[in-house]
Amino acid sequence: MDLTALRTAHPEHWMKAAAIRALTLDAVAAANSGHSGMPMGMADVATVLFTNHLNFDPAAPHWADRDRFILSAGHGSMLLYALLYLTGYEDFPLEQIKNFRKWGARTAGHPEFGHGRGIEVTTGPLGQGIANSVGFAIAEEIQRATWGTAIVNHNTYVMAGDGCLMEGISQEAIGLAGMQELSHLIVFFDDNNITIDGKVSIADKTNQMERFAASGWHVQAIDGHNPDEIEAAIVAAKADKRPSMIACKTHIALGHAAQDTSKGHGALTDADQMKAAKAAYGWTTGPFEVPADVKAQWEATAQRGKTAHAEWQARVEKLSAAKQAEFARAQGGEAPKKLASTIRAFKKQASEEAKSVATRKSSENVLAVINPIMPETIGGSADLTGSNNTKTADMGVFTPDNRKGRYIHYGIREHGMAAAMNGMALHGGARAYGGTFMCFTDYARGAMRLSALMGVPAVYVMTHDSIGLGEDGPTHQPVEHLSMLRATPNTNVFRPADSVETAEAWELALTATGTPSVLALSRQNLPTVRTAHTNKNMTAQGGYVLADAEGKRQVILIATGSEVEIALKARDALQAEGIGTRVVSMPCMDIFLAQDEATRRKVLPAGPVRVAIEAGVRQSWDMILMGERGNAKKAAFVGMEGFGASAPAEVLYEKFGITAENVVAQAKNLL
Amino acid sequence: MDLTALRTAHPEHWMKAAAIRALTLDAVAAANSGHSGMPMGMADVATVLFTNHLNFDPAAPHWADRDRFILSAGHGSMLLYALLYLTGYEDFPLEQIKNFRKWGARTAGHPEFGHGRGIEVTTGPLGQGIANSVGFAIAEEIQRATWGTAIVNHNTYVMAGDGCLMEGISQEAIGLAGMQELSHLIVFFDDNNITIDGKVSIADKTNQMERFAASGWHVQAIDGHNPDEIEAAIVAAKADKRPSMIACKTHIALGHAAQDTSKGHGALTDADQMKAAKAAYGWTTGPFEVPADVKAQWEATAQRGKTAHAEWQARVEKLSAAKQAEFARAQGGEAPKKLASTIRAFKKQASEEAKSVATRKSSENVLAVINPIMPETIGGSADLTGSNNTKTADMGVFTPDNRKGRYIHYGIREHGMAAAMNGMALHGGARAYGGTFMCFTDYARGAMRLSALMGVPAVYVMTHDSIGLGEDGPTHQPVEHLSMLRATPNTNVFRPADSVETAEAWELALTATGTPSVLALSRQNLPTVRTAHTNKNMTAQGGYVLADAEGKRQVILIATGSEVEIALKARDALQAEGIGTRVVSMPCMDIFLAQDEATRRKVLPAGPVRVAIEAGVRQSWDMILMGERGNAKKAAFVGMEGFGASAPAEVLYEKFGITAENVVAQAKNLL
Repeated sequence: MDLTALRTAHPEHWMKAAAIRALTLDAVAAANSGHSGMPMGMADVATVLFTNHLNFDPAAPHWADRDRFILSAGHGSMLLYALLYLTGYEDFPLEQIKNFRKWGARTAGHPEFGHGRGIEVTTGPLGQGIANSVGFAIAEEIQRATWGTAIVNHNTYVMAGDGCLMEGISQEAIGLAGMQELSHLIVFFDDNNITIDGKVSIADKTNQMERFAASGWHVQAIDGHNPDEIEAAIVAAKADKRPSMIACKTHIALGHAAQDTSKGHGALTDADQMKAAKAAYGWTTGPFEVPADVKAQWEATAQRGKTAHAEWQARVEKLSAAKQAEFARAQGGEAPKKLASTIRAFKKQASEEAKSVATRKSSENVLAVINPIMPETIGGSADLTGSNNTKTADMGVFTPDNRKGRYIHYGIREHGMAAAMNGMALHGGARAYGGTFMCFTDYARGAMRLSALMGVPAVYVMTHDSIGLGEDGPTHQPVEHLSMLRATPNTNVFRPADSVETAEAWELALTATGTPSVLALSRQNLPTVRTAHTNKNMTAQGGYVLADAEGKRQVILIATGSEVEIALKARDALQAEGIGTRVVSMPCMDIFLAQDEATRRKVLPAGPVRVAIEAGVRQSWDMILMGERGNAKKAAFVGMEGFGASAPAEVLYEKFGITAENVVAQAKNLL
Repeated sequence: MDLTALRTAHPEHWMKAAAIRALTLDAVAAANSGHSGMPMGMADVATVLFTNHLNFDPAAPHWADRDRFILSAGHGSMLLYALLYLTGYEDFPLEQIKNFRKWGARTAGHPEFGHGRGIEVTTGPLGQGIANSVGFAIAEEIQRATWGTAIVNHNTYVMAGDGCLMEGISQEAIGLAGMQELSHLIVFFDDNNITIDGKVSIADKTNQMERFAASGWHVQAIDGHNPDEIEAAIVAAKADKRPSMIACKTHIALGHAAQDTSKGHGALTDADQMKAAKAAYGWTTGPFEVPADVKAQWEATAQRGKTAHAEWQARVEKLSAAKQAEFARAQGGEAPKKLASTIRAFKKQASEEAKSVATRKSSENVLAVINPIMPETIGGSADLTGSNNTKTADMGVFTPDNRKGRYIHYGIREHGMAAAMNGMALHGGARAYGGTFMCFTDYARGAMRLSALMGVPAVYVMTHDSIGLGEDGPTHQPVEHLSMLRATPNTNVFRPADSVETAEAWELALTATGTPSVLALSRQNLPTVRTAHTNKNMTAQGGYVLADAEGKRQVILIATGSEVEIALKARDALQAEGIGTRVVSMPCMDIFLAQDEATRRKVLPAGPVRVAIEAGVRQSWDMILMGERGNAKKAAFVGMEGFGASAPAEVLYEKFGITAENVVAQAKNLL
């Protein structure tokens, strides 16, 4: 590359981009780790985007109608941090750049949502950002249709590399975005032909332009170091009615000795090579020093966004007070006031009617009363709408022809769905829930973990939550998944026993602000076990006494979901033999274990025999059975030890010994 | 559709295909569950394939050079079962068809590998089969290059639906297969335009032909009910040097009232509609009754394969006895005799040298002595070769120009890699291992669970196994993953503490016949803790006494991997205070818990305080700490409670309290 020619052609642009490159070199060198090559390769694209297009306001990083910038290639975090520092975000002073990858810094190895205002989303696990962006863009489409372009009208810009595009999740995102014609979504593909192991061609020869075009995208290929081409491509992308992909041919680690090599992907810390690269850029200041004029030019790029922000604010203020409040409420992730009374009314009716109903159906019934009062919900399913019971009559289906629709047919794309849900929640103004079979949390894990890590209150509606699904067999029967999800930090796993607990779980899920929820729901019908109405949300305690012992308390049975019915039957049998038996329903173990000790002790006092019943593996139950004032010698578990099988549900429960008879036998054996 | 015209044009073909359709209707009706539409839609393609091309021998279902038939759309299991019954597989008599989806039947809801000979792979979770098939085809390519076409020369045929192709894993498979020019791989795309939620277009408008072509595939589109077109397409596909995709335009549930609808996807059990469909087929026999002439025609389709099998056998017998034995050994999944002595020699040297080395590097060192004596290993990494240390000098890289290479650059495709590994192992003659960062087991979960369910002894080399990876931060730091994997049935999770345990773990992983292994390996250097050589594989006990207490045994410290070093330091400090402390290294908790009680009791006697140390969450440790003769009041855990952070590893260990000092404090607190 002839850097001098580039520099001469666009001197101001060049120095602004050089600032990103120099800061990247300095920060990676100081940390002695990180990824230099991507920021150095994509600096020109970022500079044109921020200078001429991206509407952002460093003084109001969370302004609702800002354009979103998503660094899907999260290892290039210094690109983002440099931009946030250069444009003047308060949370990213130079000190943060100097402390890149150090304990307590906002400038973590990969961008971490919540570490500092200006980071839209946590990225690093490849492919997530591009899939998140589909959620961002869908949320924007729905809100634009709902509120009008005066209030919502912005773009979502993404930078993705070969890694993002090789990950399967990218195909799910590309397919969904193409079908949905998300015109405000623009992806820059950092087409540098380099991965960690070598040239891209050692693992992939896909023509990415053709691949995106096959799914209905607008595609362009440009020289990613030519500001004029970058500018023209962005203008064309914004004008097109389809989602746009701009393949930017770039040189990884531009101007460095490691340019165009795998080595350039990683940490470039050699002092002499850094010096040479900076010289090639015409960068003469010391480490972490950005010339005042360059810094001023960068800060000036924010002016367009500041003006847009002010104009937007004026338009918002023309809305009625009620509309303003409603907009602010939804954007703030606050549940409507009516939610609590709606849930209470539902619970009362469910307790009184005491129907036998599958909790997946209970969930649908709850949604039928919630969705009309929470216009910010966006529901969907990975092609199992009728099985997950996720669609309610009022929602409308989101399509290119119906932008106010709030139900998404995600297709058979669990991972893409979960990542899109994260994007919707992070966009703001949206409460996303989506369904698939519980077993296929396996496919969505990558994004579900990020919900937990980011504290995104997405709601995963996971039906068919055990061998109780029957004939589909072990590929579809979760056994380890409840323990797996409980092992995941900051994830609330709800497994309600009936309609009442299902309503309570939904209330908690929809009022959560920093925790995702998983609702594990049955395929099979379950009796109503909460036949006495309480206004109190008992699920909010995680576990509670559903039926207490009569006479001396000798046994405590603890169960969740479909197994609470079994526990109650076992209690009847034990009580009939004069054995005082308490039944604890534990719809959310995570929440229970977070209660104060007095509460936990009341539910699980020391002394009695404990038998836990759940149609899954034992692992997460060990703490309930043996910790929490328990005793290994007086504890038993009735559940699964291995994978399930294909047969009718009732046969499976019998064959695997998850029966009231077995519970009774286990309890008596320990007495 | 004018079924009469189809029937008249190809009467024998038609009735053979009708047999599949009728058996499907009957079996689904008897089970009152299942998926009728796919087998009814793809019956013509299957009939042409089996009649004219597929080399199979029902009398020798596992003959090494057979063609493979993989039903990626596993919900259409009745297609496979019908074919196995009709062509005369011993494990699939009519009784099995009648017991479809019943307890104990080989004919599970989805095809389950191991249930009956003739099922090549477990499918059902969508997209897996097509990704497995890439592994099948790679194994075939390598073995064909190695043994010559006289011994290995077969095709892998796959049937995949829209669901398979919407799943992201399919893109990983398509990209890898295209780059690798897997000419013996032929995918039939059941292009019926229907998914469970409705028409495919409600979720996807991808032009699949263009998508496959973008990755270098040979593509054709045909009428999937026209035997002539099917035949011509297969002939063309076999002739092409690229992997082939044949888009078969079909009618789901052909000839049934539910044809071309979502309803047709599911269980079609209405008696009148069944009757009408059978009448339209010209099918006049009763339920489960196949006319003798049709059955005979189906059985005759096996003749080509039987002849091919016999000819192949004759060619094999011309090989030297040593070569025959070697071929049989590798195909049988038997480790070479030299493995044990090689591992012992490695261990001896490692104990003597007592180097400080990261276990990911130890793993590479082990592979360097194993790979040369195990030509059946196929290694690889999801673009982290230098980080996972998975490549050894002797392997050669598998490319279109080097078919004998045994190292795969999988690209950034963890899920596709894991599924391909399953395919290689199931193909036979291959021992597959592959690496990524431990945290990205999340991406591979779908396929890793299937390794466990099928009992495939794949080896997952998961490096960077804790916060010990440092600056990359929480997106890259596993914390819940060890517990998650331990919760998964039939999965051995090894977390070796040094080079010696790493060698032992590899020996167990490579001699396993029915269990996948996960090797959790450190990024950071670890001291050799097994400095006294033993021939015995101590890891085979799961956990063992590494350093016993001096004096009265008051404390047992139990640790894995990188935390064994911390346990030993804590022991030194405790012993210095006169507190007798045992250190148990537990490189595989799964194996330890499967030992007899006497063995477990010797390692973990009742009485002493127990402190477990692992840089992950506690969940899986509860059994070791409180069960196994433990006591909740005398147990503590030193590990992680939430997600990690971005900082140098030593800072993180200090900040999260995973230190010898904290272990000592915890132990003393409990005494």
